[in-house]
Amino acid sequence: MTKILVLGAGVMGTALALPAASHTDNQVTLAGSPLDDDLIDAVQKTRHHPTLRVDVPDTIEALKLSELGAAHLRTADVIVIGVSSPGIDWVVELINDSAAAPELLALVTKGLVANPDDALPPLTYADYLQSAVPQVAGRIAGIAGPCIARELALGMPTRVTFASRDIEHARRLRTLLQTSRYRITTHADVVAVEACAALKNFLCIGVSAMISAYPLEDGHAKNPLAALYNQAVLELLILSRWISAASPAATGTTGSDVAFDLAGMGDLHVTVGGGRNSRLGTCLGAGRRLSDVIGNEMAGITVEGVDTGRRLAPGFSAACHSGALAADALPLTAAILHSIESDAAFDFDFTRLPG
Amino acid sequence: MTKILVLGAGVMGTALALPAASHTDNQVTLAGSPLDDDLIDAVQKTRHHPTLRVDVPDTIEALKLSELGAAHLRTADVIVIGVSSPGIDWVVELINDSAAAPELLALVTKGLVANPDDALPPLTYADYLQSAVPQVAGRIAGIAGPCIARELALGMPTRVTFASRDIEHARRLRTLLQTSRYRITTHADVVAVEACAALKNFLCIGVSAMISAYPLEDGHAKNPLAALYNQAVLELLILSRWISAASPAATGTTGSDVAFDLAGMGDLHVTVGGGRNSRLGTCLGAGRRLSDVIGNEMAGITVEGVDTGRRLAPGFSAACHSGALAADALPLTAAILHSIESDAAFDFDFTRLPG
Repeated sequence: MTKILVLGAGVMGTALALPAASHTDNQVTLAGSPLDDDLIDAVQKTRHHPTLRVDVPDTIEALKLSELGAAHLRTADVIVIGVSSPGIDWVVELINDSAAAPELLALVTKGLVANPDDALPPLTYADYLQSAVPQVAGRIAGIAGPCIARELALGMPTRVTFASRDIEHARRLRTLLQTSRYRITTHADVVAVEACAALKNFLCIGVSAMISAYPLEDGHAKNPLAALYNQAVLELLILSRWISAASPAATGTTGSDVAFDLAGMGDLHVTVGGGRNSRLGTCLGAGRRLSDVIGNEMAGITVEGVDTGRRLAPGFSAACHSGALAADALPLTAAILHSIESDAAFDFDFTRLPG
Repeated sequence: MTKILVLGAGVMGTALALPAASHTDNQVTLAGSPLDDDLIDAVQKTRHHPTLRVDVPDTIEALKLSELGAAHLRTADVIVIGVSSPGIDWVVELINDSAAAPELLALVTKGLVANPDDALPPLTYADYLQSAVPQVAGRIAGIAGPCIARELALGMPTRVTFASRDIEHARRLRTLLQTSRYRITTHADVVAVEACAALKNFLCIGVSAMISAYPLEDGHAKNPLAALYNQAVLELLILSRWISAASPAATGTTGSDVAFDLAGMGDLHVTVGGGRNSRLGTCLGAGRRLSDVIGNEMAGITVEGVDTGRRLAPGFSAACHSGALAADALPLTAAILHSIESDAAFDFDFTRLPG
């Protein structure tokens, strides 16, 4: 019997609990964050999750934060971090306060952390947790790839990547979660995978601007969208290699191709056209400014790609200046950062694409 | 003054003539195929192309086949082949009969040719023309990438690849055609580029099946579509390297990554969801058989991906049997071929995806 504790009862945490609970030798607990009391309350009373809009089987124990004891954390074999990025520090505190040291710490939350040295690349959560939760160092697994939570919960075929520095940990996690519909590949470059997972939200903003920038009688032009989708994946490759190479966990290899797989091109495919990053990008492509959009219809909504861009900006600027990154190869990244930092509409100059 | 002759006055040939004619030092002639008399007639009388639905400037000379003389072919510096794939042999005959030997032969037509030895990979048009039009051998350039003809004609930003074995030919062609909105990269592996351009039509059938196979209340599931899009690009990489390596023009390099760029992932992005291959795939994903679809609403319509699959099948089967291709890495290709050859609906088993 493997005890799996999912922290965060939003749509993604809850959706992941479902394939976990379909294995009869797993014992799954879904614990709400400080923001999830109403969700857990609904699940406890009705066994229905109101935002994911699926039933939650009785085999999943649902707990409010007030019901979650240190023993739940300490006895968990696997802890899955399923909160959104602003909750990452809360999770770290919770784990450390309970002195939990699970066999595996799995991470669905995506984002970057500012590097203390702002001339260096930002850190992924994989590296951040490595030092913030030292008792699980080396046993952190990232989960990435094209996965809309509700579709996973409904049993739609879904294919993702599990990554860990020691690939055996990713394989162990796959054994616990894979089903006939939830299909999992494994990878060792967890930092590049996490970098892609975070940066695809950022790059999605610029690609999605093409949904509104070139309207046609029957919708919008597809050529500019495909051109910038393609460019976004190429830039994701460069940025994820740069972040991975600078990681304290860097293996010295010249850089993996994870951008050309599920965590990169696969996830960007599903991210463009759905979700908050795409919604923002579509507004910016129509000529609006960031401050206007987040001050109006997107007020109070976390747009993870904007936060990711802000974490990326200092190191990116330093690396382009020093030549560690070839600025000419990264015009899309530069243009999205310009829109964020200068509060400008996104108006991409296609002659800046490398020849 | 550079004389550019476009053969084929359908939407793509005509669309390409427009950026060419925007360079004042080009002299552009658009010549219709045996099927294009009505189109040329309309252009001559109204300067409007009825299927592309754009005006054609007076600077482009439009000729019916009966008005095209051997001198037009012999004096052309660049001939652009802009017919659809069933017209390729007609073009070869026309060029050879006129003894034309242009400085450059550019190719928009996409498809594969059966290899005389059916245990070997099919040939791309780049290789086929190399021997069929020997007087231009070494001066053939392929044009590939995400480009809907009407959008190019309307001046929507578009980014494509020009490829030629000697990359200087691709660069020369870029000089003649590039504008501020039609952006061009160049590549030397013309065989891999042409293989991607043809095979993306074939792979699009299986990816597009996911548009209908998993309906949801608000459209269709995106996770399976992204999973098979991702898999299609990975298979495109393997197949294009295999075809390129077997080409008489093979350079001995271990294989380029062109599948991870405009001719592969970029073009597949735009092909899925639009066009005839996608339409067929969507029908097959809904449980219908190929014979039913092409016998009814798609009767008489050329579906290039089906023809490409039939050219691919013998060599693919032989290579999987001999171990030259790892069948386990190519489940999507195998499943689409099964649908075509066994006249079966497309019902993909996601557990076949490599782990």
